[in-house]
Order: sequence, then C-alpha cells, then structure tokens
Amino acid sequence: MTHSFYPPQRTLMGPGPSDVSSRVLGALARPTIGHLDPLFLHLMDEIKTLLQFAFKTNNALTLPVSAPGSAGMEACFVNLVSPGDKVIVCQNGVFGGRMQENVERCGGIAVMVQDTWGEPVSLDKVEAAFDEHPDAAILAFVHAETSTGVHSDAKALCALAARRGALSIVDAVTSLGGIDVAVDEWGVDAMYSGTQKCLSCVPGISPVTFSERAVQRIKERKHKVQSWFLDMQLVMGYWGGTTKRAYHHTAPINNLYALHESLVMLQEEGLAAAHARHRRNHHALVAGLEAMGLAMAVAPEHRLPQLNSVLIPAGVDDAALRNALLNEFDLEIGAGLGALAGKTWRIGLMGFGSSERNVVYCLAALEAILQQQDVAIMSGKALKAARAVFAQD
Amino acid sequence: MTHSFYPPQRTLMGPGPSDVSSRVLGALARPTIGHLDPLFLHLMDEIKTLLQFAFKTNNALTLPVSAPGSAGMEACFVNLVSPGDKVIVCQNGVFGGRMQENVERCGGIAVMVQDTWGEPVSLDKVEAAFDEHPDAAILAFVHAETSTGVHSDAKALCALAARRGALSIVDAVTSLGGIDVAVDEWGVDAMYSGTQKCLSCVPGISPVTFSERAVQRIKERKHKVQSWFLDMQLVMGYWGGTTKRAYHHTAPINNLYALHESLVMLQEEGLAAAHARHRRNHHALVAGLEAMGLAMAVAPEHRLPQLNSVLIPAGVDDAALRNALLNEFDLEIGAGLGALAGKTWRIGLMGFGSSERNVVYCLAALEAILQQQDVAIMSGKALKAARAVFAQD
Repeated sequence: MTHSFYPPQRTLMGPGPSDVSSRVLGALARPTIGHLDPLFLHLMDEIKTLLQFAFKTNNALTLPVSAPGSAGMEACFVNLVSPGDKVIVCQNGVFGGRMQENVERCGGIAVMVQDTWGEPVSLDKVEAAFDEHPDAAILAFVHAETSTGVHSDAKALCALAARRGALSIVDAVTSLGGIDVAVDEWGVDAMYSGTQKCLSCVPGISPVTFSERAVQRIKERKHKVQSWFLDMQLVMGYWGGTTKRAYHHTAPINNLYALHESLVMLQEEGLAAAHARHRRNHHALVAGLEAMGLAMAVAPEHRLPQLNSVLIPAGVDDAALRNALLNEFDLEIGAGLGALAGKTWRIGLMGFGSSERNVVYCLAALEAILQQQDVAIMSGKALKAARAVFAQD
Repeated sequence: MTHSFYPPQRTLMGPGPSDVSSRVLGALARPTIGHLDPLFLHLMDEIKTLLQFAFKTNNALTLPVSAPGSAGMEACFVNLVSPGDKVIVCQNGVFGGRMQENVERCGGIAVMVQDTWGEPVSLDKVEAAFDEHPDAAILAFVHAETSTGVHSDAKALCALAARRGALSIVDAVTSLGGIDVAVDEWGVDAMYSGTQKCLSCVPGISPVTFSERAVQRIKERKHKVQSWFLDMQLVMGYWGGTTKRAYHHTAPINNLYALHESLVMLQEEGLAAAHARHRRNHHALVAGLEAMGLAMAVAPEHRLPQLNSVLIPAGVDDAALRNALLNEFDLEIGAGLGALAGKTWRIGLMGFGSSERNVVYCLAALEAILQQQDVAIMSGKALKAARAVFAQD
C-alpha cells in the first residue's frame, strides 16, 4: 500500500519553482467549480486583465496556457511559424537551443546566433544575421536566461526585429514579475512566461500574449497549426470573451485560482515596488557572497536580480554542497546547466522568495556548509554586508 | 483593484470536473518542493506505480502528462502517427472528431468510421474499414464517450486491431476509475486519461500509458515528433527512472501531490469496489429519474455508470433549468454536446462524486426545479426508488 505524501517545508532558492506563499496555496485548495460556470468565466476575465497588467499590454490575446512554460514556448512557435519560415534564434544559454528545436519541429529554418553562455545577446550579431537573411520572418530570444542568470536587452532586440519587418518571440519565463517587462512599449509580438518563477505561483501554467500583428499572422496561416491543444484560434474561442465561449479543453481550474491570487498580490504590491524589492535583495545577496570571498559569474550590468549565478570555488564538491544545504537546511539552490554544469550555482530570489529572510538564511547556511567542508572563505562578514544593503532603503 | 476569488461550494455532477475530496485538495496545498528534489523523484516513482495499478498494466512508459486530457490525446497521436500513416478513427460523439483533427495535424490520413451518437462503436464497421484499408497502421477510438454517456467494447476493438497488425489508441478520459480498464489484458497500445473525471482530482493532468510495441514504434520513427513538449523520448528522460533523470520541463508539482493522493484513495478502496460503487449509484439515479417519468438517452447495455445522459422532456427550457439548479442548489449538471445539444442533460457520478448523497441531492433538486417550471413529472417517487437500490446491497 502506498501512503499519502507529506513534503517537507523547503526554502526554494533554485531557478524555480520558487517559494509559494500560503495565500497562493490557500487559493489553490479552494473548492473546484466547473470550467463553464459563470463565476469561473468571470474569473477568467479577471485573470486576463491581471496578465495584461503584468505584461504591460493591451493585447486582447493574453491568456494562461494550461501547461508549463515549455508549452507556452511551443504555443508561440507553432502558431507563428509556418513550414519554410526562417527564424533567427539567439542562443546564449539552454533555452535558445530549445527554441531551435521548436522552430525545426514546425518545419521552419532556424538561423542560429550564438553568444557565450553568461553574456547577453549581441545586437550586432543579430543585425548581421538579418543582413545575411533579410527574409527572416521572426526573431526569437530569451529575455532572462534561466540557465546563466543573464539579462538581454529585449527593448532593443524587439525594435531591431520591427525595423527588419520581422515578428519577435520573447521568452519571459524568468523575467515576468522580477524585472521590467513592457510588451506594448517594446513592441513584442509574442511572449510567454511561467507561473513558478517571479509570479511565485505553483508550476504548471504559462501566461502568453500576442500582439495584433501576431494575431494577423495567425489568421493568415495557410497551414493548420500542428498542435490542436495549442492552436490559438481554438483557444481564443474559450478565452475570447466577446462571443459565446466554446468549450476547448477543461481548464486547470484550481491552478487558475492560484495564478489569480498571485497576480492579485503582484497588483497589490505594484510592479515597480516588486522590481525594486528584487533588486534590493539581489544586491544584499551579492554583497554577502562577495564578503564571503565568492565571485559572481555574470558581469554586474547583465545580472538578473532574480537569478544569481555564483562561481563554484575551486575544490568544492558541487553536488555534496547542494545536498548538504538540502538535507541540513531544507534549502534548495540550483546547479549549473549545460555548459555551466559543475561551474556555477544558481541562487534564485524570485517573487515571494525574494525576501530579506531568504537572503539571510541562504548566506548563513552557505557559510556554515562551506566551513564544514573546509573551504577557505571569509567568515562572519556576509550577514553584515547584506544587512548594510537592507539598511540603505 | 482586483480582489481574491472565493468560489462557492458547488456539487459537480456534470461531465467533469467532478467533486474533489478535501483529502485531495489538502494534498494540493502542501508546500511546493523542487522538481529535481530527491523526495519528489521518489514521489514520481510512486505515481508511476499507482498509475500502473489504475491502468492494470506493467507498461514501463506510464506517466502523467503535465497538461489536460487534450494534451494526453495529442501525446498519443504525435508520438505514434508519422506523416502518411493511415489511422482508422471511430466517431460516435465529440471526441472521435478531435482524434481526426489530431491525425490530420500529424500529417496522417484519418479513415473515419461513423456511428450514431448515443450508440457504441460498431465492430462490424471497423472490420469493414480494415478490409478496405488493410494498410491502416492504427485504430483509434473512445472507450467512454463523455459527450453521449456510451461505453464501447474496448477489449474487442483492441483485439481486432491486433489481428489486423495495427496499434490501438484508446481514449479513457472518462472511463479510468469508473469502469474496468485493463490495458495489458486487452492489449491496448496507447491510452490516455484525465484527472478530473473518475479519479476525482483537479483538472490539468493526463495519465498516459504506452505498450512495448508502441515504444518500439516511437523508437523507429524517422520523422521527429512534431511537439517538443510532448515528445515521449524526451519526457522519458525525466520520468524514466532507470538512468539519471534529465531535466525536460518543470513538473506541475502540486498537481502531482493531488494526483498521488487521489490514486492512494483509489488503491485504498480497490478498483473492483470503486467500479461497484459507480454501478450502484448509477442504478439508483436511473431508478429515481425513471420513477420521476424521465427517460434515459442510451440503451441500458451501453450506459456508462459515471455519465448518465437523460432526454430533456418536451417543453423544458434546457438552459433555464440548468441555471436554476446552479443558482438555487449550487448543483452543476452538464448540457448536451454537439449533435445532442439541447436534447440531453449529462449527469455525472464520477469518482468521489459518485455517492449516495449526490444521487439523493440531484434527484431532490431536479424534482424541485421541474415542479417549479410546471413540467409534468411523477412527484414524490424518485427518492424512494433510488433508496430501494441502495438497500439492495
């Protein structure tokens, strides 16, 4: 016989999922109602409005895809890429590679622009790619690379795409809620995010938004969208709102209660205040880590406040340290991914998890375990350095 | 400012989602842990074993797809259908049509076998389709048609497919947990279900299982699976278990807590006992409805105990009645779908919602509203008829 599962109370400071507040967990557990219940349809309208607020957009086609961020990514590509389309894909980490997979599985041609992992997307290289491929229909890039902790200039990249007559697809999985995202001002054509990063909701839902230009492109498609589940023309029938709602699939009701609550919390705090909180806690964490003698992997001007890549000091057993943090402190931090596996740790300060408490707890736990493993660090300085940053505000 | 959302406590007796028990809602709200946490990986193994129990299979490739049943359906088709493949698709309700969409979007050729809505799939017609298309690679059909409340003979259909050298894809969205499903005994090659029907979990997850023959077919594919998110070769890397787990996407952690709990409850009750409960409550509901003077839409031998299609009496305003049930009794029943819209109601008795309490409540509420609308029914007889069935056990 299998027994019920009772998870421990972890502190989640990896690349996501991030800590979920009890308000959001409470919303998740409210009684399920039907996906065609008038009260649920009203909730859907509110979620749409709240997502427009979070994305800073008036896009009518703004909704939560009923599956994780990977499906949100796929929703953007399968709806916008037709067979034979050329797509310029920027890769400066893991997720650019996944975009390439998506383009190719849609029958498109991916033109790859490679940048070093840990550095932002180079505008010059993208310009050069458009020079070489003036017929490129789409530019796709990652705003906040979860695998490296790097921030690229989404505004400039979208402007570049627009100048070249291409649509832009932007991965905002880790950026939304943590740093500024301004869909309308930047002229983003399609953007997808995830709920389990800076929105601090449970994983499993992917907010997306499509510009009018993107909707036009979808309507003009000559080749049916290859995914029935992710076909926006069909999904719109359920989420549309203006006409009678058509059943498409059963929405993940309880997850949408939770997403709604997390967005209400974001609205209560305000976007600017949420971003400032992410920045302040980031600076405090970095001050603490540096005071300990550790070094960051990304140059200061490109760092994401919500995802801090730290170089693993020489001689440290990466897995042993992360296991000790998990087992002795119930604290999860992230391993490096891909090219950075074994070289970096990724410390998330995302959404509800971006708190002074988590900064202090992480520094204290990390210092304790590094000392225990006889790693040469500067002891007893980290908390003071972090608290000095808190005191500045 | 948008406020928190507090749904009412509905009684869900439509085609799903069904009533979710407080045990499952409690599991849903437990603290989120990471998708690579060793404790979570252990939970994944338990879920796999519990799903094998529910599907009655030893299939190694048995797992919950991180999205609703429609995505589970798509996972079966995109992995098994290659461009040019001929697929015999049986349609006797809404969901056969969705299968056709899936086949065609994979570049396959759908050979449709049509049956009257409200009747099961005809074995003779399927035999004839194989005679005409001996090169058909796959037979696809719905075990329990949610749109009509009809049960088809999955065992005989799978045997037929095997005799013709074709794989079988079976929709068990509404059957799993409510009536017998025996994947290994029947020789099913691919089956998908949903969590929000007879498993009485929240919506958003789709359990799937693939036979060894199906896995072989996937491995021999020459054309990449068109969906990156649903590519079983990649998903297996995370759910596989035998080798090191590779990150594919962030699993919907909390939904999997809930699915685990609902499967633990099913294991505690036992499959045979759960099926007997569904049958008994179905017979009681039907006895009550017929005592009231209402008629069932499906012949007794083809009825699903978990989804009861009732003919709407002449002169009744369908929408007004369902609204009155919802507003005055917080009771949701389902409308007819597609060809049966306006002609039937669909009353679900699924999973946790298949209870004596729900049978009694539904009969009482329905009788009250029908009387209120001056519909000629036999009053005061329904509960007695239903209770006579309960008393038989």
